[in-house]
Amino acid sequence: MTRDVTLALIGLGNVGRAFLDLLVRKEAVLAQRYGLRLSVVAAADSSGGVWDPVGLDPAALLAHKRSGRGAGAFPVVRGATVLPGGGVRLDPVELVRMAQADCVVEASPVNLRTGQPGLDCARAALGGGADLVLANKGPLVHAFAELEALAAANGRGLAYSATVCGALPVVNVGRRDLAACDIRRVRGIFNSTSNSILAAMARGESYDSALRAAQEAGIAEADPSLDVEGWDTANKLVIIANSVLRQPATLADVQPVEGIGGITPALMAAGQARSETVKLVATAERDPGGRYRLSVRPEWLPGDDFLAGVRGWEMGIVWDTDIMGLQQHKVDERGPIPTAAAVLRDVITLCGKAQ
Amino acid sequence: MTRDVTLALIGLGNVGRAFLDLLVRKEAVLAQRYGLRLSVVAAADSSGGVWDPVGLDPAALLAHKRSGRGAGAFPVVRGATVLPGGGVRLDPVELVRMAQADCVVEASPVNLRTGQPGLDCARAALGGGADLVLANKGPLVHAFAELEALAAANGRGLAYSATVCGALPVVNVGRRDLAACDIRRVRGIFNSTSNSILAAMARGESYDSALRAAQEAGIAEADPSLDVEGWDTANKLVIIANSVLRQPATLADVQPVEGIGGITPALMAAGQARSETVKLVATAERDPGGRYRLSVRPEWLPGDDFLAGVRGWEMGIVWDTDIMGLQQHKVDERGPIPTAAAVLRDVITLCGKAQ
Repeated sequence: MTRDVTLALIGLGNVGRAFLDLLVRKEAVLAQRYGLRLSVVAAADSSGGVWDPVGLDPAALLAHKRSGRGAGAFPVVRGATVLPGGGVRLDPVELVRMAQADCVVEASPVNLRTGQPGLDCARAALGGGADLVLANKGPLVHAFAELEALAAANGRGLAYSATVCGALPVVNVGRRDLAACDIRRVRGIFNSTSNSILAAMARGESYDSALRAAQEAGIAEADPSLDVEGWDTANKLVIIANSVLRQPATLADVQPVEGIGGITPALMAAGQARSETVKLVATAERDPGGRYRLSVRPEWLPGDDFLAGVRGWEMGIVWDTDIMGLQQHKVDERGPIPTAAAVLRDVITLCGKAQ
Repeated sequence: MTRDVTLALIGLGNVGRAFLDLLVRKEAVLAQRYGLRLSVVAAADSSGGVWDPVGLDPAALLAHKRSGRGAGAFPVVRGATVLPGGGVRLDPVELVRMAQADCVVEASPVNLRTGQPGLDCARAALGGGADLVLANKGPLVHAFAELEALAAANGRGLAYSATVCGALPVVNVGRRDLAACDIRRVRGIFNSTSNSILAAMARGESYDSALRAAQEAGIAEADPSLDVEGWDTANKLVIIANSVLRQPATLADVQPVEGIGGITPALMAAGQARSETVKLVATAERDPGGRYRLSVRPEWLPGDDFLAGVRGWEMGIVWDTDIMGLQQHKVDERGPIPTAAAVLRDVITLCGKAQ
């Protein structure tokens, strides 16, 4: 038996487009393995939105976006007729309200200052009775407890496994699989752009050329300061603190947040002479009062530290637990597909049949 | 709101006893975090069983077992009265039928030849309307499809995350988190006893003294041939094939199953001269027809292979996927507590409130 699930997709950048691509490539697997037929009934980018209750062709929408045009200009086709009113110039919040999709996927760019417009989209989705999948960290960093409560009050699902290390199941493992654990310490490398820049610098490249290469690989945030100044890493740590460690936290609770800008060629050479590797490390560690202290900063690690072996484009995490041992997980993933795959995983978890 | 859940615990060896210990230690966390109050109403070991609908004191049962006495001799106490009929000499299958617990935990020793008595316990549990948590691989290796169908037909939950690498979430990650993936290859080190023996041999110890040390650490299977001849590893690979790779398989499909008995000091020295490390590796790899070929055998690995870095008491897995990158996960766990913690995780997943 197959279940029809309608989606509203907010944000058509790298991740949103990769998600459309996966909807096409994985259509058969979704039906056979999870009993799901997913159809995108609304989509929005910064130029506007398009809504068609009959469903938008994901391959055509993807081609449209790749040709440089906005969602608001995507033609809605009915047989041989192109409906002139197909493209509605709506802000995404209005679109979410109108479309009444079963599940809203929010993949618009991170706004560190306000979490908008993702946060209002998230509120509109859950308040309007839709499940919500977030690829955008902004709403969680600004209003984690509010969104959890809103989901519970409306009896809807909220999932965000894509927001921390893409396809590496950090939130899911921490929340579900480390069940009943006392997590004593978390350490991780959560930003592959800064990790790859440090790796390139260790090979002798300049900071600037390494950053350019990361941007060309399409994985750096549009605003590179998020990656290299540690804010993307801090965002992910805040999400882990709230969801896995069950300690309410915002960015203000991460101290310090220090990026990789201070790593000079001279420091790099000195570290290599000591056989140490520099990594941008997020840490959550208990203080004597039992609260987790959260920090993001470069650390010089000996070669046998698991995080020293998280290389180039990899990301990784170390969970130190009381009853489930020391767990060390890493992923080598490139480009936006793995993050989009994590979004699809969340849609499956919320809407598919139980696995 | 707290939910009362009754448990029948079959098997009181290392894992069963560690599970009782966790029920005591984690009582508050279970109530606060998962809304669960778990009570053991029946317990059995090879000597017999005990059943009390009011609930057995887990700490007292643990002390009783640690003093060397069997479950059938555990006194059922009602106020100041010790009920003489408390200990019933029942085989575990009868006990499961009588106790009508909400959830049956099957943690009796692996029987490779028939899967019994675990398999009949599993049938009685699911057929009688209980959820089933398996720490025992035997029933799964012998009758995976039958048990999945029985759970579905009865609308009950079946979980077995403890059967593959204890606390490392192999089955859960493979089945739920690698959603919609095409898994191209799986490689893993699934048996920490043989891994620690190989590590000790690499340090110059003899096979015999290394095996003795593993047995004293309480982690080796009662029958060490399961560990060192590769059958425990093969069992876990069969479970992964059935549950994650969705390819029906039994032990007969794993070829070869080769243990570590052939690793001599001379071979070890030659490998070290090549800077290679020997590991007992399980592999599932696609053949040209699209079927997974399953094998277990020692492999000589270069130092930069992730599995070469799975040291001593660690276990680990490498998932090679199409859309979620290359995922490499390992765990350092000792003794039976982490496996018991995985059993508790499964009870929480099946019976607790959603996370």
